[in-house]
Amino acid sequence: MSLLNGITISIGDELLSGKTVDSNNAFISTVFSRVGIKISKKLIIGDVNENIKKALNWSLAEADVVTITGGLGPTHDDITKQALCEFFGVELKTHPEILESLKTRFSKRGFEFPKSNASQAEYPANAEILHNSVGTAQGMYFVHDGSHLFVMPGVPAEMRAITNEQIIPRLRDMTGAIQESIDIHSIGMPESQLYEVTKPVLDEYKGAKVAYLPKHFVVTIRVSYDSEEVGENAEKLAEIYARLSQQLPENIYGRNDESLSSVVGAELLKRQATVATAESCTGGLIASMITDISGSSDYFNTGFVTYANETKMAVLGVQEETLMHGAVSEETVAEMLSGTLERSGSDYAIAVSGVAGPTGGTEEKPVGTVYIGVAGNTRQYIKRFQFGSHRVLNKQLSAFTALNLLRLLIRDEL
Amino acid sequence: MSLLNGITISIGDELLSGKTVDSNNAFISTVFSRVGIKISKKLIIGDVNENIKKALNWSLAEADVVTITGGLGPTHDDITKQALCEFFGVELKTHPEILESLKTRFSKRGFEFPKSNASQAEYPANAEILHNSVGTAQGMYFVHDGSHLFVMPGVPAEMRAITNEQIIPRLRDMTGAIQESIDIHSIGMPESQLYEVTKPVLDEYKGAKVAYLPKHFVVTIRVSYDSEEVGENAEKLAEIYARLSQQLPENIYGRNDESLSSVVGAELLKRQATVATAESCTGGLIASMITDISGSSDYFNTGFVTYANETKMAVLGVQEETLMHGAVSEETVAEMLSGTLERSGSDYAIAVSGVAGPTGGTEEKPVGTVYIGVAGNTRQYIKRFQFGSHRVLNKQLSAFTALNLLRLLIRDEL
Repeated sequence: MSLLNGITISIGDELLSGKTVDSNNAFISTVFSRVGIKISKKLIIGDVNENIKKALNWSLAEADVVTITGGLGPTHDDITKQALCEFFGVELKTHPEILESLKTRFSKRGFEFPKSNASQAEYPANAEILHNSVGTAQGMYFVHDGSHLFVMPGVPAEMRAITNEQIIPRLRDMTGAIQESIDIHSIGMPESQLYEVTKPVLDEYKGAKVAYLPKHFVVTIRVSYDSEEVGENAEKLAEIYARLSQQLPENIYGRNDESLSSVVGAELLKRQATVATAESCTGGLIASMITDISGSSDYFNTGFVTYANETKMAVLGVQEETLMHGAVSEETVAEMLSGTLERSGSDYAIAVSGVAGPTGGTEEKPVGTVYIGVAGNTRQYIKRFQFGSHRVLNKQLSAFTALNLLRLLIRDEL
Repeated sequence: MSLLNGITISIGDELLSGKTVDSNNAFISTVFSRVGIKISKKLIIGDVNENIKKALNWSLAEADVVTITGGLGPTHDDITKQALCEFFGVELKTHPEILESLKTRFSKRGFEFPKSNASQAEYPANAEILHNSVGTAQGMYFVHDGSHLFVMPGVPAEMRAITNEQIIPRLRDMTGAIQESIDIHSIGMPESQLYEVTKPVLDEYKGAKVAYLPKHFVVTIRVSYDSEEVGENAEKLAEIYARLSQQLPENIYGRNDESLSSVVGAELLKRQATVATAESCTGGLIASMITDISGSSDYFNTGFVTYANETKMAVLGVQEETLMHGAVSEETVAEMLSGTLERSGSDYAIAVSGVAGPTGGTEEKPVGTVYIGVAGNTRQYIKRFQFGSHRVLNKQLSAFTALNLLRLLIRDEL
């Protein structure tokens, strides 16, 4: 497999004004790396003909593969196509089959075809068309002095479709690269510590490339292989996941597209069990995360947001004497748990009470103090956590931690 | 006021790999535009000495103002400083006062000063130091052939502090620009329609620059003036906000740092009133949004997430016969509202029931059908909405819409 050098160019005034953060290039970097293209530079420029031609000039001289995204829609006056024509010294050419399909598209929806849209069927004469399966602006492919230029619309869904369906297969043919990978998700352990404890296992797998990707409170370990054939390293990847999960059952909760909510949901479904929530400082966030999963009505029936002490008493039956110890206490969370199980009829319960901040802290219970409890399986587990000073982050961290504790309780691993 | 041309350069391998999306440049673009600098290109390169020097060369030749962020921490081997020295043909010079303050910083925390950190006091001999008020890596300022180069660490908090405190005042002196602006937030009207209906009013204000910024379900109208003195156009901006709010009371809900949740909270506080929630398809999201606001415990006591029909009956007292009409119906939402008011003792209530999707739709009530109700002030208002097919977006759009309806009900504008 040969490694090629790539440069990405994004075109669009909105990307320069600071109003839009460009996410296309992060996508291109990621998927290109799997087929052996390493992006060495990214350039963002406005809808300016002269700047586009300058950028084409130096990037094609410097890189094996260049991508351009943006500047192809009808509102952009097709400035990218014009610049490409001038750069290559060619004219625009109408593609009758594209024009036909544009007209069909409009008539299907009962609209007349606007003349101005005919330009969507015109492309530089030397372009190979890259079919856009989700929109009307087609991609383009050029070869110039041994370098490869791919041009796409900037709309993320269209850019992704053209990249995945048209560009990646071509690049794979060039580099002969097949990358197989697994994303292993962990929570509750800092990246540096996770690195230390997983390194000895991962070092046993020669040829495996490992990256640690922290995002919010989750650190994902991405393990990948350069394979000669599809599936060649699938067993090794599954084995790595199994070994790391066994080594760190408290932290590693899922892989690839799985989220904490989806994993908890799957564990409940497997046991035909249900869960209910009682939330004070998280204010409904845990229930909302659980119900982000399609099909969650099969295992989630009831959530209580008991923000006030009166509500904790009236809705969950927490005793007034208990609240004298403080609403943020082990005792209160214990009664929130039992009240939730009793009043919802669910098999499992989550309860959370804490000081989300930024105000309301005391010396004994500073901002970020959170009691998290889970109950079910005739067991109950409550722990005090000390999080930070940022209100919304405290809510999120409490919710992630609570869902992970429930996962462990359900699996009898707590 | 003169308009200057700017180029931003970000340095860091992590920005090229697709793992990190660069947000520094969006910040720089935004604040630079307020002092008359228009960013025309953004370049992202790796920690490669040769590429940094090449980039310095063409950018300083092309632009009035160039910024570099990144490559200054001790883990980056100070590659940016080295490249700057080579580009300018100077040596590194130790700044004794910076070295002293580094040592003080370490001893205060009880640590010995690591020798390797001494490099944090070394800067190219021709650099003017830009004080970093939140970290140890200082910024640098160079003038080269009439162009201005600002170099900052890539850590967002440090980059922002140096930009705001050191760079902006210098740029303002250069361009003589003061920009005053207001962000006016709207919901429930497409950008194109908002543009049509607000244009006649905004056209009356000569010299006002207007931008429409859509984000999620909110479209923000940013109106700005280039002023000679601070406060010169403050009255006009306040007048524009008042006129547009009056013109579109249902859509325009706040300005600048205000959110729908904070505006609803302020309206409730003003009346010493409380609200409670009963959520089916939003699954706790509305309660979570309300409690994202610090101080929300003053007006929010209770939330119910009644996902199952049994819970709607047991917790809110919805009648079984009512549920026969369907859990997603005006009748059910009406009983959810009255049950919530009664059982929470709150002054206002929100209730939502719908088909979030992607499954569960019927011909009569397809995916995206949501009934949203608000009650209080002896009034009740329930409306059927038809949203899209994406589960999490449907939850969010329902929650935003519900909060906006509550805002209107509280203000007697519904």
